Amino acid sequence: MSHRLTPLAQSLPATVPFVGPEAQERQRGAPFAARLGANESVFGPSPLAIAAMEAAARDAWMYGDPEGFDLRADLAQHHGVAMANIVLGEGIDGLLGSLVRLLVAPGDAVVTSAGAYPTFNYHVTGYGGTLHTVPYSGDAEDPDALLAKARQTGAKVIYLANPDNPMGSHHTGATITDMLDRLPTGCLLCLDEAYADLAPPSAIPPISPDDPRVIRMRTFSKAHGLAGLRVGYAIGHPDLIAAFDRVRNHFGVGRIAQAGARAALTDRDWLSQVVNLVDESRKAIRDIAEANGLRPLPSATNFVTVDCGQDGAFARKVLAALIDDGIFVRMPGVAPLDRCIRIGCGTDADMARLRGALPQALARALS
Amino acid sequence: MSHRLTPLAQSLPATVPFVGPEAQERQRGAPFAARLGANESVFGPSPLAIAAMEAAARDAWMYGDPEGFDLRADLAQHHGVAMANIVLGEGIDGLLGSLVRLLVAPGDAVVTSAGAYPTFNYHVTGYGGTLHTVPYSGDAEDPDALLAKARQTGAKVIYLANPDNPMGSHHTGATITDMLDRLPTGCLLCLDEAYADLAPPSAIPPISPDDPRVIRMRTFSKAHGLAGLRVGYAIGHPDLIAAFDRVRNHFGVGRIAQAGARAALTDRDWLSQVVNLVDESRKAIRDIAEANGLRPLPSATNFVTVDCGQDGAFARKVLAALIDDGIFVRMPGVAPLDRCIRIGCGTDADMARLRGALPQALARALS
Repeated sequence: MSHRLTPLAQSLPATVPFVGPEAQERQRGAPFAARLGANESVFGPSPLAIAAMEAAARDAWMYGDPEGFDLRADLAQHHGVAMANIVLGEGIDGLLGSLVRLLVAPGDAVVTSAGAYPTFNYHVTGYGGTLHTVPYSGDAEDPDALLAKARQTGAKVIYLANPDNPMGSHHTGATITDMLDRLPTGCLLCLDEAYADLAPPSAIPPISPDDPRVIRMRTFSKAHGLAGLRVGYAIGHPDLIAAFDRVRNHFGVGRIAQAGARAALTDRDWLSQVVNLVDESRKAIRDIAEANGLRPLPSATNFVTVDCGQDGAFARKVLAALIDDGIFVRMPGVAPLDRCIRIGCGTDADMARLRGALPQALARALS
Repeated sequence: MSHRLTPLAQSLPATVPFVGPEAQERQRGAPFAARLGANESVFGPSPLAIAAMEAAARDAWMYGDPEGFDLRADLAQHHGVAMANIVLGEGIDGLLGSLVRLLVAPGDAVVTSAGAYPTFNYHVTGYGGTLHTVPYSGDAEDPDALLAKARQTGAKVIYLANPDNPMGSHHTGATITDMLDRLPTGCLLCLDEAYADLAPPSAIPPISPDDPRVIRMRTFSKAHGLAGLRVGYAIGHPDLIAAFDRVRNHFGVGRIAQAGARAALTDRDWLSQVVNLVDESRKAIRDIAEANGLRPLPSATNFVTVDCGQDGAFARKVLAALIDDGIFVRMPGVAPLDRCIRIGCGTDADMARLRGALPQALARALS
């Protein structure tokens, strides 16, 4: 490297942590027949959102409103909070980056679960924070362990996804509010609720939007089927929300993105349909897994994590065989979670392909 | 602030540096009749790009390829460089943020011109860099002064926009390559070529894509009329380009964005038409300015900066009167550049409105 990178940048891994399905398709020389690995919504966006995006295409010469005023107003009304409680970002990924940048100086402690969302870890490492992990408890993140580790390390932030990715498990809202009440002073709970729309209502805690102890992350990428638009938002205390303006890419959420998200938010019927389709598909994945002697874990998300019953090496073989067979799936990266593979909800055609492919994938993995 | 922001984040200005035209419209309670202030392309995107974005809308449930492989392949072919020379970002704004993050540690020196692109300064400040400025020389950035200041301060980066925003001036490619040859060792030239498609060919220097001394920034936001999509790219040495993978928002350039940009790149006819329309409109703005006794500056961009002939206070009055009259324009923020207002190229209808509004705006400013 001939350039004078900062010592921090120099210290960061040069490897690319995110391999997309397109890269895998290029490598295998063929497209996937089923795209079930990125927790996207194969059921697509609302027709209203599609129409809004199409209409906005010819307006794409204009920057999007840097304040995202209309979308934030809609979201504020939807959630019954003030606009000052909401900041938009380029997906939750973008918001997590800004949040870490605001709170985590080099050496500051941050706590998460071993095997939880790697992009959060990427940002913590990227800003020089020190990441402390605690193991999952069974197949769920462990609030007590997270709190204890935060207390022990003086952590600035605890990351918790509820429902959880990659395991699909969830805690009740009561568990989350109890966790807030036991949060060490000065520690913020980053509550990633990407899958909130797909979870039982009991998983969503009632939290005052002005509660300074927590920031909640939401997205249009999951139930709303708009992963390719890059629109997420955070709900939190107005002081913390305002601080994002100090560091965020102000024009980062574009014009088509804002238009598509606004239309999606209005289409509650579509969202209900998607929730039903996801539920049907979760059942289908469970049936397929059980028919093959595997144990599907309960899911409050648009994927089902399936325990392959052996170790990580075995699950990786199952995964590789499915990918070979044209079915894009992923798996947790850390033991003991990596005894599982993670299968996204899909169409009937997707489920038929899975049903056809899984027996052979298992046979290959066992051979 | 009840949250434990990092000392750096705590030190950053809480004010929002970027007021969009939509905020001004909300404030005045009426939309602008002419949108000529953000250097957008009122001529819109290519019909091919519109069609591609419309077609991609229903695919928006899929994340965009995090490698942006197809678009980077197209860009590499277009520029005659390797894919390893190109990184995509959420507009040049996003790329400038990543570049500064990679190179500028707290206290590191960075050099730019007083009055040049404020978003670059925003990032330098945001990452704790120390910004050193040199004045423009006349209405152009001053390579000699930039180099001298970089030498004096041991700067990590020099920022230079060619053509320049907000003045519209440009240097020849020969001046830029000469500047490179005199660059202090270890200093990188960040060459912002957002307006390259609208400049005379002589303004674009021949630079080896593998030259480690410079990184060039390009965008689909200007001549390609896709500001609302957020697609920019940088061309540079493969080592530096690869380093972006350590910090960038890997999924930040979405699916519709990549599709629209790819189609736009193919439509050279549309680009030629836009270049012609911009040139016509530059002439119209010049004529209108001169008819009102003002001095239009030469422009190699899609705006014309007009010297109002007095001080900043006077130009601000002219600007305010135009805005009052429904014409969105902006002006340089720093003396002595702020004796000017900056008027974007527009349609015939836009030009007619400007022609009608300017005499009265001047009269009001003089009163």
